[in-house]
Amino acid sequence: MIIRPRPSFLSLFFVMRGSIVPRILPQIIGLTIYAAMVVAAVHLSGLQFEKFNITPFGLVGISLSIYLGFRNNAAYDRWWEARKLWGQLVYDIRNLARATNALVEDRERIRPLLIDALLFCHFLRGQMRRADVMDKARELAGAPADEFSAFANKADAVMRCMGERIGGFRRDGVIDAIGYRILDERLATMSAVQAGCERIAGTPLPFAYSLLLRRTAYIVCLLLPFALVSATGWATPLFTALIAYTYFGLDALSEELEDPFGTEANDLALDGLCRVCEISVFEALGEPVPPPLEGERYFYS
Amino acid sequence: MIIRPRPSFLSLFFVMRGSIVPRILPQIIGLTIYAAMVVAAVHLSGLQFEKFNITPFGLVGISLSIYLGFRNNAAYDRWWEARKLWGQLVYDIRNLARATNALVEDRERIRPLLIDALLFCHFLRGQMRRADVMDKARELAGAPADEFSAFANKADAVMRCMGERIGGFRRDGVIDAIGYRILDERLATMSAVQAGCERIAGTPLPFAYSLLLRRTAYIVCLLLPFALVSATGWATPLFTALIAYTYFGLDALSEELEDPFGTEANDLALDGLCRVCEISVFEALGEPVPPPLEGERYFYS
Amino acid sequence: MIIRPRPSFLSLFFVMRGSIVPRILPQIIGLTIYAAMVVAAVHLSGLQFEKFNITPFGLVGISLSIYLGFRNNAAYDRWWEARKLWGQLVYDIRNLARATNALVEDRERIRPLLIDALLFCHFLRGQMRRADVMDKARELAGAPADEFSAFANKADAVMRCMGERIGGFRRDGVIDAIGYRILDERLATMSAVQAGCERIAGTPLPFAYSLLLRRTAYIVCLLLPFALVSATGWATPLFTALIAYTYFGLDALSEELEDPFGTEANDLALDGLCRVCEISVFEALGEPVPPPLEGERYFYS
Amino acid sequence: MIIRPRPSFLSLFFVMRGSIVPRILPQIIGLTIYAAMVVAAVHLSGLQFEKFNITPFGLVGISLSIYLGFRNNAAYDRWWEARKLWGQLVYDIRNLARATNALVEDRERIRPLLIDALLFCHFLRGQMRRADVMDKARELAGAPADEFSAFANKADAVMRCMGERIGGFRRDGVIDAIGYRILDERLATMSAVQAGCERIAGTPLPFAYSLLLRRTAYIVCLLLPFALVSATGWATPLFTALIAYTYFGLDALSEELEDPFGTEANDLALDGLCRVCEISVFEALGEPVPPPLEGERYFYS
Amino acid sequence: MIIRPRPSFLSLFFVMRGSIVPRILPQIIGLTIYAAMVVAAVHLSGLQFEKFNITPFGLVGISLSIYLGFRNNAAYDRWWEARKLWGQLVYDIRNLARATNALVEDRERIRPLLIDALLFCHFLRGQMRRADVMDKARELAGAPADEFSAFANKADAVMRCMGERIGGFRRDGVIDAIGYRILDERLATMSAVQAGCERIAGTPLPFAYSLLLRRTAYIVCLLLPFALVSATGWATPLFTALIAYTYFGLDALSEELEDPFGTEANDLALDGLCRVCEISVFEALGEPVPPPLEGERYFYS
Repeated sequence: MIIRPRPSFLSLFFVMRGSIVPRILPQIIGLTIYAAMVVAAVHLSGLQFEKFNITPFGLVGISLSIYLGFRNNAAYDRWWEARKLWGQLVYDIRNLARATNALVEDRERIRPLLIDALLFCHFLRGQMRRADVMDKARELAGAPADEFSAFANKADAVMRCMGERIGGFRRDGVIDAIGYRILDERLATMSAVQAGCERIAGTPLPFAYSLLLRRTAYIVCLLLPFALVSATGWATPLFTALIAYTYFGLDALSEELEDPFGTEANDLALDGLCRVCEISVFEALGEPVPPPLEGERYFYS
Repeated sequence: MIIRPRPSFLSLFFVMRGSIVPRILPQIIGLTIYAAMVVAAVHLSGLQFEKFNITPFGLVGISLSIYLGFRNNAAYDRWWEARKLWGQLVYDIRNLARATNALVEDRERIRPLLIDALLFCHFLRGQMRRADVMDKARELAGAPADEFSAFANKADAVMRCMGERIGGFRRDGVIDAIGYRILDERLATMSAVQAGCERIAGTPLPFAYSLLLRRTAYIVCLLLPFALVSATGWATPLFTALIAYTYFGLDALSEELEDPFGTEANDLALDGLCRVCEISVFEALGEPVPPPLEGERYFYS
Repeated sequence: MIIRPRPSFLSLFFVMRGSIVPRILPQIIGLTIYAAMVVAAVHLSGLQFEKFNITPFGLVGISLSIYLGFRNNAAYDRWWEARKLWGQLVYDIRNLARATNALVEDRERIRPLLIDALLFCHFLRGQMRRADVMDKARELAGAPADEFSAFANKADAVMRCMGERIGGFRRDGVIDAIGYRILDERLATMSAVQAGCERIAGTPLPFAYSLLLRRTAYIVCLLLPFALVSATGWATPLFTALIAYTYFGLDALSEELEDPFGTEANDLALDGLCRVCEISVFEALGEPVPPPLEGERYFYS
Repeated sequence: MIIRPRPSFLSLFFVMRGSIVPRILPQIIGLTIYAAMVVAAVHLSGLQFEKFNITPFGLVGISLSIYLGFRNNAAYDRWWEARKLWGQLVYDIRNLARATNALVEDRERIRPLLIDALLFCHFLRGQMRRADVMDKARELAGAPADEFSAFANKADAVMRCMGERIGGFRRDGVIDAIGYRILDERLATMSAVQAGCERIAGTPLPFAYSLLLRRTAYIVCLLLPFALVSATGWATPLFTALIAYTYFGLDALSEELEDPFGTEANDLALDGLCRVCEISVFEALGEPVPPPLEGERYFYS
Repeated sequence: MIIRPRPSFLSLFFVMRGSIVPRILPQIIGLTIYAAMVVAAVHLSGLQFEKFNITPFGLVGISLSIYLGFRNNAAYDRWWEARKLWGQLVYDIRNLARATNALVEDRERIRPLLIDALLFCHFLRGQMRRADVMDKARELAGAPADEFSAFANKADAVMRCMGERIGGFRRDGVIDAIGYRILDERLATMSAVQAGCERIAGTPLPFAYSLLLRRTAYIVCLLLPFALVSATGWATPLFTALIAYTYFGLDALSEELEDPFGTEANDLALDGLCRVCEISVFEALGEPVPPPLEGERYFYS
C-alpha cells in the first residue's frame, strides 16, 4: 500500500511507484506506433476515410465507460471489503484480549490462547499471499507451531485448537457458560473473516467481464485511427495514446485491486496489520511490544 | 467458474471458453448482414437517407447504456450475493465443527451431525442446480440418506433432522442451554443461506427489464444502418456489428450472471465449495480428507 | 411475477404479458401524432426551425437519463428489499418450526403456534394487497381465526397472540429461559418483516421525483419535433416515438416496481410465497402438504 | 409526505403541491430574462458569438450531471435511512409491547413503560422538528411528563427512565435475567434510532458540495446564452429555461430530501408514524385506539 | 464542519469558508494563463490547429467524469461511514450509561466507568487528529488519566481498563453473568468503532487512483486549448478555466472528504461529538452538564 503526500505538479508526471503506467506502457506504445502507421498509410495510399468518422464511437464509448466504471466499482468494493475484514480481525483480537483478561484469572492460560490468535493472523496472511509464514509462527509460538504445518488449511486448524482451549476453560470451570459464549463469538467472527478472505481470494470477477471489456477496448483503439485520421491528421497518434491510456489504465487498475491480497503497490498492507495485532496482544499481556512496521519509500507491505 | 491468468494480446481474440461471443454470434452476424443489405438497397435505389442522421441516437444511446449498466449491476449483485451465501455456508460448517468438538465430548454423536451438515450442502447444491445428488448423499451418509429422498425440500428436511439431533443432545444432557443456543444459531444461519439461495434462484429480475432493454437494443440496431449509411457508407456493417457486440454482449453477460447457480462458464463453482466443506469437516473429525477439486482447462464446476 | 424462458427474436416484439408497452401506448401514440402534426405544420407554413437544433437536448438528455436511472435504481431496491423481507419470513417460519420441534415435546402445543405463524403470513399478504384473506385464515385455523377479524392490524394481533403462547410455554415450564429467548427472537424478526413491508407499502418515492421526471420527459418530447424537423424531416415522428418509448417505458417500469406488493405482472408472487411457508409448516408437522402454486401462462401471483 | 395517484397528463403541469417549481421559479424566470437580454444585446450590438459554441459545455455538462446525480443519491439515501429508522422504531415499540405482555404479569407495571415508549417517540419527533410536543406528552402521560421538560435531551431522559423501570422489574423479581436482556435490547435499539436520527439531522452533506454544484450550475446557465445565441437565436431563452429547470430542480429536490425531518411537502410523515405507534400500544393495552391520521389534500404531516 | 443556511445568489460567489476554490486557485489561474499563451502563440505563429478538434475529448471526458464520480462516491462513503461510527459511539456511551444505572446499585462504581468511556472518546479523537488530548483527559479524570499517557494506543488501553472494571463488577457480585454480557457488548461495539476509525484513517484510497485521475485531468486541460482555439478563439481561456474548475474542484473535494478526521472546513466535528457524549454522561450521573459547543462563523470543529 502506498501512503504518501500529494505529489507536486511536476513530480506528478514522474511518479512511477504505485502508478499503473509501467504495466500498460507496452499497449500505449504499441497503439501509438500503430496509429502513426495508419496515418502514414492513409497519406501514402491517398485513400479517403472521411466516411469512417468518429460519431458512432460515441455510442460505444458511453457503454464502454459505464462498464469500465462498473468493473472498477466492483474491484474497489472487493479491495475495501478485504480491508474491512482485516480491520474486523484487529478488532476481534483486541476484544479477545480484553475479554480473556477480564474473565480468566489464571494468566498462564491466557497467553497460549492469544498467541494462537496471532498465529491465526499470520497463517491467514500466508494463505492469502501464498507465502510461507512458518518462521514467523515458530518465532511467536515456538515448537508447538510445527503441529500446524501438516494441515492443508492451517488457519482453520489453529481455530479448532483455540476452540478446544476455550472448551477446556469451561470444562475446568475457568469460565462459565456466558463467558464461553462471549469467547466463542470472538472465534466465530474470526472464522468469518477467514471465510470472507477466502471468498475474495478464490472468486475473481467473472472472466467474461475482463474479456468483453478488453476486447471492446482493443477494437475501439484499433478502429479509432481510421476514424480520426481525416479529421485530426498527424495528431491522431496523440489522441489514440490518450484514449488508450484512459481505457487500459482503468482496466489495469481494476485488475490490480480485484485481488487485494498480493504484494503489489496498491495491495493491502497485511504485514503491517499483523503487526498491529501483535502490538495489541503484547500490550494486553504486559510484554514488550514490537515497533510498528515502517514503510519503505511510501510503500507499506 | 473460470479462473485463469490474463490472456495475451493475440490469444485475447481467440479465447472462447468463458466468452459470451458464441451466445450472441447469431445476432451479430444477422445484424451485420442486415446492415450490408440496407447499404446495398440504399445504393441501388438511390434513395437519400441524409435526413436520417445519428444525432437522435445519442439520446437513446445514453438511456440504453445507463439501463444496461443498471441491469448488469443488479445481475452482478445477485451473483456476488450468491457467492457470499455459500461462503457463509462454509463458515457455518466450520463453526459447527469447532463448536461441537468443544462442547460435545461423546465423539460418536458428533459425526452424524456433521455428516448431516454435508448432506445439507449437497442437497442445497442439488436443489439449486436441479441435479440429482442422492448418489453423493449415499456415499457420505450411507443408507440413512435415503430417508430424505421422499421430501420435496430435502435440505429443509435435513435441517429439521439436525434440529432434532441437537434437541436430543440437550435432553440427554450432552450440552447445556447456552451450548444449545450456540448450535441452534449455526443451524439458523444455515437455514438463512438456504432461504437466500431460494430467493435468488426463484426470483429472476423483473421480466419487463429484459423485454424493454432487448427491444430497445434491437430497434436501435435495426434503425442504425439507415442513420449511418449516408455518413459512413460501406463501413456501416462494421459499426453496426461493433455496437451490436457491445449491447448484446452486455445483455447476454447479465443474463448469465442473473442465475448464478447453473453450470455455465461464469456460474459459481458449487461442486468446489461443497468439497471445501467436506475437507473442513473431515479434518475436524480427524478422518482422511478428499483432495480439492481440480479445474478442467481453467473451468471449475 | 413473470418467470419464462427468453423469448425468441420474433416473439420478442409480440410479448405483451409483463411488458409495459400497453401502459404507455397512449403516450407514444399521442406524441407520434403530435410529431407528425408538427412536421406537417412546419412544411405547410414554410417556417424555418433550423435555429431550433438538437444540441441543447444533449445536456438535458444526460441529466434526465441519470435521473431516470436513479429513480429506477431506487424502485428496484424497494422491490428487491420487499423480496428479501418475504424470504426472511420463509426462513423465520422454517426456523420456528425447527426450534419448536426441538424444544417443545408436547406436540399438541406446537400446532397452534405454527398455524398462527401461517395466519401471520396471510394477514400480512392481505394487508399489503388490501385483499380479504379471512376465508384463507378460516381454512387454516378454523373458527379461532375470526377473533382477529376485529383488529385494525390483524398481523400485529396474531403476533401478540403468538407472544402470549410462548409466554405461556414458559410459565408452564414447557421451555426454559433460553428456549423462550430463541422463540422470541423468531417472533421479533417476523415483526421486523412486517414493519419493513409497511414501510415500503406506506412510503412511496418522494412525489416530487415523479413530477420532475415526468414533466421534463414531456417537455423534451414536446420540443423535440421542432428540433428534429429540419434535420430529419419525415423521420421525425419515428425518432420521437423511439425516445418517448425509452423515457416513458423506464418511467412506467419504475412506477410498477416501486410498489412491489400489488398483483401486476412484475409484482412479487406473495401467494406463492405463502404456499412455500405452508409447505414447510405442514412438512414439519408431518401432515399432508399442499402442492406448490402453478403459474398461469408464466405468471405467478 | 405526499401520497396521491398519478396525475393525468393535463393536471401534471398544474400540480403545485409537492412540486419544487415554486422554490426555483425566481431562478428560472431570472435566467430566462437574462437570456432574452443577452439575445437582444447580441442582435443590437451586432457582435458575433459564433466562436462561443456549445461543444465545450458537453464536457462540463456530463460532470455536472454526474455530480448532481451523486448528490441526489446521497440525499435520497439520507431520506430513506431516516424512514428506515422510524420504521425500526415502530417495530421496536410493537416488540416491546409484545414482550412485556408475555413477560410481565402485573399489568399495572406494563402501562407506564409503554406510555414512556410513546413519549420517547413524540420527544424524538419534537427534537427532530424543533417543535414543542409537551402538550402531546401531557395528554399521554399526564403530570409526570413535566418531569422531562427540564432536560436538554428529553428523549434520552425518557430512555434512562425506561431503563430504570426495567431495572426495577428485575430487582423486584418481575422478570428474570433473560427477560431483562430481552427488554434491554429493545431499549438499546430505540436508542440507536435516536442516535441515527440525530446523525442525519445534525450532519448536512458537506457544504462544499452545494457550493461547487450551485456555482457550476450558475456559471453554465450564465454562459449558455452566449454559446446558444448564434445557433438557436430567439429560442435561446427557452432552452436556457429548460436547462435551468433541470439543474436547479434537481438541486432543490436534493436539498429538500437532505433534511427529511422537516414539515415540507416531501418530508417524512412523523406525525403519522407516531400515531401508528400509539395504535399498536393502545391495542396491546386493550384500550380504545385513536384513528389513523388522515392526509389533507394528499399531504400527510 | 460547516452548517449554514443556503447562501443567497450574490453571496454564493463570495463564500470562501468551506469552499475548495482557495485550494485549486493556483491550478485554475495557471491553466488560464497557459490557455491565453496558447491562443496568443497560435495567432502569432499563424499555425492552423483545425485538425486538433474537440471531438476525441468527448470519449476521454466521459471516462474521466465517471471516474471522478466514482472516486467522489468512495470518498463520501468514507466520510459518512466515519460519521456513522461516531454516531455509534454516542449511542454506545448513552447505552452504557443507561445500563450501568439500571444494573449497578453502588453509584460509586458507576462514575469511574463512565468517565473512562469519555476518556476513550477523547483519546480516539486525539488519535484520529494526531492531537494531544492529555489536558482534556486530566480535566475529566484527574491524575489517573496520566496512567494512560505511556501507551502507544491510549484508547485501547482505556478499553482494557474498562474491561477490567466490569470484570471486577462481576467478581464482586455487583452484576451477574447476563449483566456482564450486556456491558461487555457495549465495550465490544466501542472497540469496533475504534477499529473502524483506524481503518479509515490508516487506509487512503489506492494511490493509483489519484495519480491516474490527476494525470488525465492535467493532460486534458493542457491539450484542450489547442483543440478549442480554432473554434472558440479568445474565449478559449474562459472555457479552459471552467473545465479546470470542474475537474480540479471535484478532485480537491474528494481528497478533503477522503480523510474525514482532520480539522479542515468539511471534516467531521469531533470536538462537538465528544461534547455530546459528555452531556449524556453528566446528565446520567446527575451532575452539571457542559453547554453544547458553539460554531464559529458556521464552522464547528
